[in-house]
Amino acid sequence: MSKKLTKRSQDYSKWYNELVIKADLAENSGVRGCMVIKPYGFAIWEKMQAQLDKMFKETGHQNAYFPLFIPKSYFSKEASHVDGFAKECAVVTHYRLKNDEEGNIVVDEKAKLEEELIVRPTSETIIWDTYRKWVQSYRDLPLLINQWANVVRWEMRTRLFLRTAEFLWQEGHTAHASKKEALEEAARMQGVYADFAENFMAIPVIKGTKTESERFAGALNTYTIEALMQDGKALQAGTSHFLGQNFAKAFDVKFANKEGKQEYVWATSWGVSTRLMGALVMTHSDDLGLVLPPNLAPIQVVIVPIYKTEEQFKAISDKANAITQELKNIGISVKYDNRTTYKPGWKFAEYELKGVPLRIAIGPRDLENNKVELARRDTLTKQIVDQEGLAQTIKQMLDTIQTELYTKALKYRNAHITEVNTFKEFKEVLETKGGFISAHWDGTSETEEQIKNLTKATIRCIPNKPIFEEGKCVFTGKPYSKRVLFAKAY
Amino acid sequence: MSKKLTKRSQDYSKWYNELVIKADLAENSGVRGCMVIKPYGFAIWEKMQAQLDKMFKETGHQNAYFPLFIPKSYFSKEASHVDGFAKECAVVTHYRLKNDEEGNIVVDEKAKLEEELIVRPTSETIIWDTYRKWVQSYRDLPLLINQWANVVRWEMRTRLFLRTAEFLWQEGHTAHASKKEALEEAARMQGVYADFAENFMAIPVIKGTKTESERFAGALNTYTIEALMQDGKALQAGTSHFLGQNFAKAFDVKFANKEGKQEYVWATSWGVSTRLMGALVMTHSDDLGLVLPPNLAPIQVVIVPIYKTEEQFKAISDKANAITQELKNIGISVKYDNRTTYKPGWKFAEYELKGVPLRIAIGPRDLENNKVELARRDTLTKQIVDQEGLAQTIKQMLDTIQTELYTKALKYRNAHITEVNTFKEFKEVLETKGGFISAHWDGTSETEEQIKNLTKATIRCIPNKPIFEEGKCVFTGKPYSKRVLFAKAY
Repeated sequence: MSKKLTKRSQDYSKWYNELVIKADLAENSGVRGCMVIKPYGFAIWEKMQAQLDKMFKETGHQNAYFPLFIPKSYFSKEASHVDGFAKECAVVTHYRLKNDEEGNIVVDEKAKLEEELIVRPTSETIIWDTYRKWVQSYRDLPLLINQWANVVRWEMRTRLFLRTAEFLWQEGHTAHASKKEALEEAARMQGVYADFAENFMAIPVIKGTKTESERFAGALNTYTIEALMQDGKALQAGTSHFLGQNFAKAFDVKFANKEGKQEYVWATSWGVSTRLMGALVMTHSDDLGLVLPPNLAPIQVVIVPIYKTEEQFKAISDKANAITQELKNIGISVKYDNRTTYKPGWKFAEYELKGVPLRIAIGPRDLENNKVELARRDTLTKQIVDQEGLAQTIKQMLDTIQTELYTKALKYRNAHITEVNTFKEFKEVLETKGGFISAHWDGTSETEEQIKNLTKATIRCIPNKPIFEEGKCVFTGKPYSKRVLFAKAY
Repeated sequence: MSKKLTKRSQDYSKWYNELVIKADLAENSGVRGCMVIKPYGFAIWEKMQAQLDKMFKETGHQNAYFPLFIPKSYFSKEASHVDGFAKECAVVTHYRLKNDEEGNIVVDEKAKLEEELIVRPTSETIIWDTYRKWVQSYRDLPLLINQWANVVRWEMRTRLFLRTAEFLWQEGHTAHASKKEALEEAARMQGVYADFAENFMAIPVIKGTKTESERFAGALNTYTIEALMQDGKALQAGTSHFLGQNFAKAFDVKFANKEGKQEYVWATSWGVSTRLMGALVMTHSDDLGLVLPPNLAPIQVVIVPIYKTEEQFKAISDKANAITQELKNIGISVKYDNRTTYKPGWKFAEYELKGVPLRIAIGPRDLENNKVELARRDTLTKQIVDQEGLAQTIKQMLDTIQTELYTKALKYRNAHITEVNTFKEFKEVLETKGGFISAHWDGTSETEEQIKNLTKATIRCIPNKPIFEEGKCVFTGKPYSKRVLFAKAY
């Protein structure tokens, strides 16, 4: 398979699809809408998981596991939730297959379930049904629980990582004795997600809240982090929901407060998914392939030998192995590619495609001079550096790459927040420059809906740090006290 | 809820069920046969996962992720596999719900799938359908891939951890260029499982192979590790399968060998599941609760303060916090239980129930004398030790506990392998002493089946280190060259 990608400027969407496949991140499976996450893609996801899991535990959360299946009736208990989730989903109706008279495998109609089971699209209902048994008194609160799981939402149009029928995610579900605590938790987790996006994925995000129409089905408020992709479209990278007492009421989860009075429990839920893989790819990568931030790269450094003779190869390999060991000792993940079946040029292209942050090339002359060639994947710049102190040089350079990837993305993002004051401007900016549009809106779902129908742009968020400025709605002209951010979105 | 358990000697099965629930490991959910794994139970499973994952990676494997759903037709491609797995399974037939005229949520008959999807009971078929695209040449081999996932098998009689409709597991699926390599891989993973069971779970296991009738559906050979529970019943703790070319032929996975000739690929698969949690509980625990090996205990050491006055509590807390920090620094997981709402006696019982390997109690007099009281969960013995050098004392004691738990279980296991030479003896030992019965068998499935029907005992394995000894089948009297191990099993 050719390593050459469609250029982003030609067809951004095609570039993305090709890159995900050619870089061995994921591919479509024989099951409609379900992807196979390949080892290289999964190694990145594992790094994300490990870091997020650490951050969840540091903020007091524990992992648990709840059933894959949810009885149909559970969904009906929270009215807005069923509308949002129970409709497009995988429904289990039978529990047995059999051979028919011609020997074909068919569903055994005798093994029909009394109540259909839904493959979880999200787990609020099954978890709150469980929490009823776990919570009696204020002493049992808070419950701070997270689950790493697969979920299924029957999407009609799917794209690898961005929108798949089955995806992997984590879902936090917490229960609190007071509204205040639950609100604090929801905000805290938005903060954890933003921290992770910025410091590990090197993706700048805007923290804000969703408008009513964009909220999670069953939430009173949804906190979001919004990122901007290189094509000017926004991507919701993580959400944290304040669920009020909706699920506690639906599943009758009460606790005795300190005064012995029964109260309903307050709830939050929050999640990020393999969708983040899509955000990672689309934020940093270029026409040659992936660009991975060192904090999430499965291979941070690759060493490629350049040689003609067997003797040279041996001498270079000795050096490469020594460097490998030195880097491993300080916790850097490194691969020495000593395959003799591929030429250096082929390997260079391969690791560019795979987004390995730093490449070391060692030739016979480098060996003589106690030097190596270092090439940065992000800037495509090369330099000759001393072998002495190489591990420290590399460590610093990885830190630099991590920082500069973030700075570059931040600069792009900031350059793509455009203030507009008329609907004409709104449409022009949206069609030409893209990105976030900071505009006044009159606060109604009707106006939001009309703008969406006309332009495909939605309100991505009302920023946590709002730009308080009296102004008039770009669409209806009615007054509003602050600007919100519109964009087309993934 | 009372912490008191039914005694093992009274009702072993009831003891197990109560312990799993009272120690907060797991509970039944509102979905038939599906369990909720509670945070404490999940923390143990996470420790198992982390260690196994490390061992898989050290032996060259990578993780990936394959779809939850398997099209029905995939199962039909490997004849023995479909008989073993596709029958009792969850079948997805529809992808949408709707509101009926009365506002009830019902299955939308218009959204019927053309081909039913099976919730994976195991993933050979979907994975080998994928491997067809990944393998062209001998250069693409071996594929050494593992997946951590949930699977569903529609069991009629379920028990927490031991047999549940949904369970968590890992499944390795490897592809090789030769039969020899595949056989080596299957044996290697049996070795990894045995190493894990013995050195982390402190469970001695017998390595062996399964007889034809006990093999995995689709395997040419199944390697197993068999453990013995305290009630004298065996538990299959992990299996590794040599699949020959069965799946390669069913899914047409060929490779060009070095001579350019097309050959079918050779396969293995291997897995362990949350069933191991059941094995862990049943091997070491006692009538007071869990006994956990230090290598898998979420909390290795708990500190309980004993005080009367506020002043004493403060002084003890200072010391406890210092000890906590010291233990953490050398990688020991420790909890200081400073809750004032519970009395020491209550806490002692709580951590005994939860199987925390070591308990430190500190009272005012200990403080004066620079001592603490150390109590071992496994032996229920106490001793007074110096605060000086406490971290090292504890580290050594944890190692001792780990070793002694294994030794104790090994002693029990070895005392419960009984050689018998007649069917009368066979039945007597089985009904009175239980455990493994080492006996001759004539090598036929018919005899195996008859013995099973008469006694419920099955051949657990033909040991890897066989006891070569000419003898006569205890049932039919026909000659056979080696002894095999029978037992009743979970």
